[in-house]
Amino acid sequence: MLDVKITKLTVSDVRFPTSFEHHGSDAMHSDPDYSAAYVVLETDAENGFKGYGLTFTLGRGTEIVVCAVKALTPLVLGKRFGDIVNDFRGFYRLLTSDGQMRWIGPEKGVIHLATSAVLNAVWDLWAKMECKPLWKLLVDMQPEQLVSCIDFRYITDVLTEKEAVDILRKAQSGKEQREEQMLKNGYPAYTTSCAWLGYSDDHLRKLCVKALEEGWTRFKVKVGADLQDDIRRCKLIREIIGPNNTLMIDANQRWNVDEAIKWVLSLAEFKPLWIEEPTSPDDILGHATISKALAHLGIGVATGEQCHNKVMFKQLLQAKAVQFVQIDSCRLGSVNENISVLLMANKFKDNVSSQQVPKDTGWLRMPTWMCEYVDHLHEHFKSPVIIKDAHYIPPQDAGYSTEMKEDSVKKYQFPDGEIWQELSSQMKCLT
Amino acid sequence: MLDVKITKLTVSDVRFPTSFEHHGSDAMHSDPDYSAAYVVLETDAENGFKGYGLTFTLGRGTEIVVCAVKALTPLVLGKRFGDIVNDFRGFYRLLTSDGQMRWIGPEKGVIHLATSAVLNAVWDLWAKMECKPLWKLLVDMQPEQLVSCIDFRYITDVLTEKEAVDILRKAQSGKEQREEQMLKNGYPAYTTSCAWLGYSDDHLRKLCVKALEEGWTRFKVKVGADLQDDIRRCKLIREIIGPNNTLMIDANQRWNVDEAIKWVLSLAEFKPLWIEEPTSPDDILGHATISKALAHLGIGVATGEQCHNKVMFKQLLQAKAVQFVQIDSCRLGSVNENISVLLMANKFKDNVSSQQVPKDTGWLRMPTWMCEYVDHLHEHFKSPVIIKDAHYIPPQDAGYSTEMKEDSVKKYQFPDGEIWQELSSQMKCLT
Repeated sequence: MLDVKITKLTVSDVRFPTSFEHHGSDAMHSDPDYSAAYVVLETDAENGFKGYGLTFTLGRGTEIVVCAVKALTPLVLGKRFGDIVNDFRGFYRLLTSDGQMRWIGPEKGVIHLATSAVLNAVWDLWAKMECKPLWKLLVDMQPEQLVSCIDFRYITDVLTEKEAVDILRKAQSGKEQREEQMLKNGYPAYTTSCAWLGYSDDHLRKLCVKALEEGWTRFKVKVGADLQDDIRRCKLIREIIGPNNTLMIDANQRWNVDEAIKWVLSLAEFKPLWIEEPTSPDDILGHATISKALAHLGIGVATGEQCHNKVMFKQLLQAKAVQFVQIDSCRLGSVNENISVLLMANKFKDNVSSQQVPKDTGWLRMPTWMCEYVDHLHEHFKSPVIIKDAHYIPPQDAGYSTEMKEDSVKKYQFPDGEIWQELSSQMKCLT
Repeated sequence: MLDVKITKLTVSDVRFPTSFEHHGSDAMHSDPDYSAAYVVLETDAENGFKGYGLTFTLGRGTEIVVCAVKALTPLVLGKRFGDIVNDFRGFYRLLTSDGQMRWIGPEKGVIHLATSAVLNAVWDLWAKMECKPLWKLLVDMQPEQLVSCIDFRYITDVLTEKEAVDILRKAQSGKEQREEQMLKNGYPAYTTSCAWLGYSDDHLRKLCVKALEEGWTRFKVKVGADLQDDIRRCKLIREIIGPNNTLMIDANQRWNVDEAIKWVLSLAEFKPLWIEEPTSPDDILGHATISKALAHLGIGVATGEQCHNKVMFKQLLQAKAVQFVQIDSCRLGSVNENISVLLMANKFKDNVSSQQVPKDTGWLRMPTWMCEYVDHLHEHFKSPVIIKDAHYIPPQDAGYSTEMKEDSVKKYQFPDGEIWQELSSQMKCLT
């Protein structure tokens, strides 16, 4: 298996016209078409295993990420699978440190999104080779092996390789029970699908009522475009979900630092658990200021969806700028970089002494694990997520669950797929 | 003139094979081919004026930036010139805030490099329309007009529009004399061309001696790959230039934070003015730690070449992480964003009270203005820089001096230009 070679990499620009129904709309992205640069790795393996990986995009610009994946392709083709996974740190470094290409990053924006898509495909391939779902591949790894996937460049001032191994070694105890429990109860989720910014109050009400019936207890509302609208929408949703369910608000980077504090103070009466992306994703010190200003209200700061790499996360943690760390394995360099952020977050949790903050409200709210859920486009995936009582149930299919249905990829390919050809002729008729 | 419309945007992938002679080589970029995504804006103006802009790249990956420029093109085509320059802030926002494309940035990496190339071309066009070199266009602007080009989103906690106007108003006095002096004496430069990492000691010695003869007094050495090499090279160059000339060292992001401090301490005896890019360009807090550790030696921290936007510069200043701010108008969103960083730097200079630091060694060394000089590829530009006694002489030609010779663009176009076709057949012969 280790002798298998990567023989082909194809990348597609797949776009779903979600903007037509305002799915995914927020204060900064009013018309997103949920899209992906979608990578397929082929090998010379006899069983014909392929690896599927993607990075998430919003429509226009996906072609740029596709172009970047093509630029990375020569670094991947012909590689022996064993050489990749036995020195995954080295392979990560190879993709992120090309002497010419790192200039257009480094490790940020388009080139890092492309890196993510490629590495996601490698992880999918690895899990498939091991006939395990990705989570199980990771759970079964020895601490040393998992840590060997991480590139520690630029984070050793917060986390060394030895510390990372120690954290994972400590966590070995109780692992089996936790796995059992996760398989039984799943991983807590919250829903964002009830309250996109472009939805009418009526639509929002209907979706909230339905979500409550389905067992959802945590709801996220998009805010930031108009304060009066936000007050009305938060009031409405709080009335529907009651005082004991959880409300989160998400501004998608709409505000300046001072503005963020003022705006959130005006929404504090609705008791949001967090304000997500209050300002520029690059503004570590700004997030720290906002976090400090809201701490007395019990409102945390969440960010990370557009936090471009582990160096930024390192600083968000160092500056106590976030209480909720939101990693995105389509923006970070796949599992490799995600693990490094999770381990840094874990370390910072340990570093908060009970003298500094009351133990149950530590500045980094580690026990509040949960994962976002949006109710769109699942029908295009071969192994769609399974949600039960507002919890993600760990998938059983081998791989990363990133494989799309071939027919979907074909139909939604931009601009030549059937769906886009149809939309294009409709637009022509209208003009 | 304001009614002129932008009718065409072309973008070229121009690459110079500088890697063959190790020009530009450093600890992280061992084989750079100095390149550009090169934008030409055409208009329907009777005089046929065109705008030329570029963003700098290192070879591979330039095609991705070219792809990004093409993605931005619909936002530019058909625009009335007056509508752009009379609301330049709005135009900047238009390019950086597209609801779908900002996801792949925002304002960083490939998409921001592309934005920079396009905006640089607009500024070239504007200066040409006014029949002035760009610097003169800027110098002649009223404070309000210049400030109207800046997008203040995410920086108002450090610099408001009013403060920006105030800084510029104060600076009106003495402007004419400063202009006169600049025209006479030029703007101080330092040379990086003597000591690229790939150069041999002999070559380095020869170039240093020659540079001294030409009047250079400030020399930058690339370091970071091997400590013993660095000690030898710094010793050599310090011996040649003597104790009174200035030496700077540049690690191009090679180190972790702790490593940077240790390494620079080992080179402190050679009295470098600054250590440039000691670690990740994203690590604001890391730079602050390094800066603090080196302050007692009088060694400053310089960075900015890969600092991706004004929000990052804002924080570098807030955290006192840099003593030397190195903006790059090919990475930042052109003049618009550059001015915002210069004004923030100016404000931070004012905020340093004499109680905190001795006045003549303020943490932000504002009086040490100087600009990098590298001695390559000037022959390809229509208005190459003029260097006199190690000073840049302000150009007199109208525009931004960004226009390349048509013949060069054609020859060095990648991969179809004559030069690359030749290189490609030579490579084929060798293999």
